[in-house]
Amino acid sequence: MTVSIIGTGNLAWHLARVFEKNNIEISEIYGRELSKAILLTDDLYQSTPTDQLDFSESKAEIFIICVSDDAIEQVCARIVLPENSILVHTSGAKNIDILDKTLKIYHDLEVKTGVFYPVMTFKKGKSVDFLKIPVCIESNDENTKQTLIKLAKVISDEVYILNSEERLALHVAAVFANNFTNHLLALSKAILDAEELDFEILKPIISETFKKALSSRHPAEVQTGPAKRNDLQTLKAHLDYISDDEDLVRVYKTLSESIEDWHQD
Amino acid sequence: MTVSIIGTGNLAWHLARVFEKNNIEISEIYGRELSKAILLTDDLYQSTPTDQLDFSESKAEIFIICVSDDAIEQVCARIVLPENSILVHTSGAKNIDILDKTLKIYHDLEVKTGVFYPVMTFKKGKSVDFLKIPVCIESNDENTKQTLIKLAKVISDEVYILNSEERLALHVAAVFANNFTNHLLALSKAILDAEELDFEILKPIISETFKKALSSRHPAEVQTGPAKRNDLQTLKAHLDYISDDEDLVRVYKTLSESIEDWHQD
Repeated sequence: MTVSIIGTGNLAWHLARVFEKNNIEISEIYGRELSKAILLTDDLYQSTPTDQLDFSESKAEIFIICVSDDAIEQVCARIVLPENSILVHTSGAKNIDILDKTLKIYHDLEVKTGVFYPVMTFKKGKSVDFLKIPVCIESNDENTKQTLIKLAKVISDEVYILNSEERLALHVAAVFANNFTNHLLALSKAILDAEELDFEILKPIISETFKKALSSRHPAEVQTGPAKRNDLQTLKAHLDYISDDEDLVRVYKTLSESIEDWHQD
Repeated sequence: MTVSIIGTGNLAWHLARVFEKNNIEISEIYGRELSKAILLTDDLYQSTPTDQLDFSESKAEIFIICVSDDAIEQVCARIVLPENSILVHTSGAKNIDILDKTLKIYHDLEVKTGVFYPVMTFKKGKSVDFLKIPVCIESNDENTKQTLIKLAKVISDEVYILNSEERLALHVAAVFANNFTNHLLALSKAILDAEELDFEILKPIISETFKKALSSRHPAEVQTGPAKRNDLQTLKAHLDYISDDEDLVRVYKTLSESIEDWHQD
C-alpha cells in the first residue's frame, strides 16, 4: 500500500513515522507551506514534500487528510486525485458526508471516501506506542472499508468499525473524559495556588483515582466524595469556602447535583 | 513511639500495617464491634483489639481517630485518655477545633490535639507505597506538631504542615480533581454504553491526558477541545447529540463555559 499525507501537524508527523516504520510507502506529504512539508519529510526515508493539491500523477492509493476540522472542506474543494483512489479524513467530530458532499460540488472525481480516526492526542516528537492506539474506520463502500482496516491493522492492534453517529458519540464521550477532566485538574490547581499549596500533594491520589476508575467495571462503582454520600455538612463547607468564585460554585453545584442524580437511593 | 488506632475501616487497616512494618508499636485497635477490631489485629504481631473507649491504662502516646467524619465527635465525647497523650483525627474536611471543643464539653482531659491526614484513597488489602503518600500535619501545640511530624516521617517521605483552612482548600481541590473527574468518566462511559461502544476505546487517550496534565507546569497549559478553541460548530454538534439528556447538557454547558472563561484572551 502507498499513501499520501495531507497536512503537517502532530497527527501527520506521527502517521508518517509509524507508516514508514511499518514499510507503508508515503508518496507525498502536502503542506500549505512547502517549508513545513519539507521539515516533516526531513528524516523520512523517501516521500516528496509538496504544496500542490494536484495528485493526479501520484502513485498513492490512499490520501489521508490530517488537517484541522475547519480546513477539511477547503482541502476537498481543491484536491485532485488519481482515478480509483481513496480519500479519508482523520477527524473524530466530522461526518463522513463532508468528503462526498464537497467532492461532488467541486469535482466529478471517481474516488471512494472513508474515515481513519486514531483516538489519541499527539505531539510531534513525543513517541507513542501506536499498536495500542485505537483506530476507528468508516466507509460506505465495502472494499474501501476492507482496505482501510488492512492499513489500520498494520499500525494498530485496536481497530474498530464505527459509523459517523457512533464516532460522534465517541467524540462527545472523549470531551467529557479528557477535556473536562483536564479542566477540573486546572481548577483544582488554581484552588491550591490561591493558598500557596503545592499541587504535588494531590498527584498521588489523582493517579490512584484514575487507575481505579479505568480498572473498574464502571467508574460509577468507585465513585466517592461528599456528593456521593450526600454529606450535606461537607458540601456546605466546600461551597462556603469557594463562595467568592462564581465559576467554581457553578461547576461544584452542577457536578455535585449530577453525582447525586446518578447515585440517589 | 506507641500508638492506638480508633476505627477498623480502610485507613485503620493501612495505618496499622504501615506502622507495624516500621516498628511503631500499636497498643490497641478499637472497633465499635469487637469482631471487627479482632479481624483488623488478626495478622498483626501484637496489639489488643477492644470495643472500649477507656484508654486510661493504655501505654500509647498517640491516639489516632480513623472513623468517618460524622463519627469523630461521638468518639471524642466518649473517649478516656491517659494524661499527656495526643489525640488526632485523620480527616481532610474537619477543622482541628472539633477535637478540642468536644473534649472540653465532655471531659477535663489534659490532652493535646492534632490532625494526621494521609492524602490518599485506601482500600483494605490493596497494598500501597506509603512512602509516596503525602501526610498533612496540624497542631496548635509546637511539641505535639513535632511529635506528629516525626511519626509521619517514619511512614512517608512527603510530610506537609497545613492549618485547617489550608486543609479545607486541599479537600475542595481534591473533590474537583478526584470525585468530579471520576464522575465525568462515569458519564463518558454512559454515553458510549448508549451506543454499545466499548469504553476500552477511550482508555489509552484518557491515560495520556492524565499523564500529560500531571507532568505539565499547569493542566491549563495542555487544555484541548472544542471549548478551548471556541469551535462553535463542534460544540453545537455535541449539544445536539446529547440534547435528550438534561443532566449531560447541564454538565457540558457548565464545563464548556468554565473552559471558555479561563481561556478567553
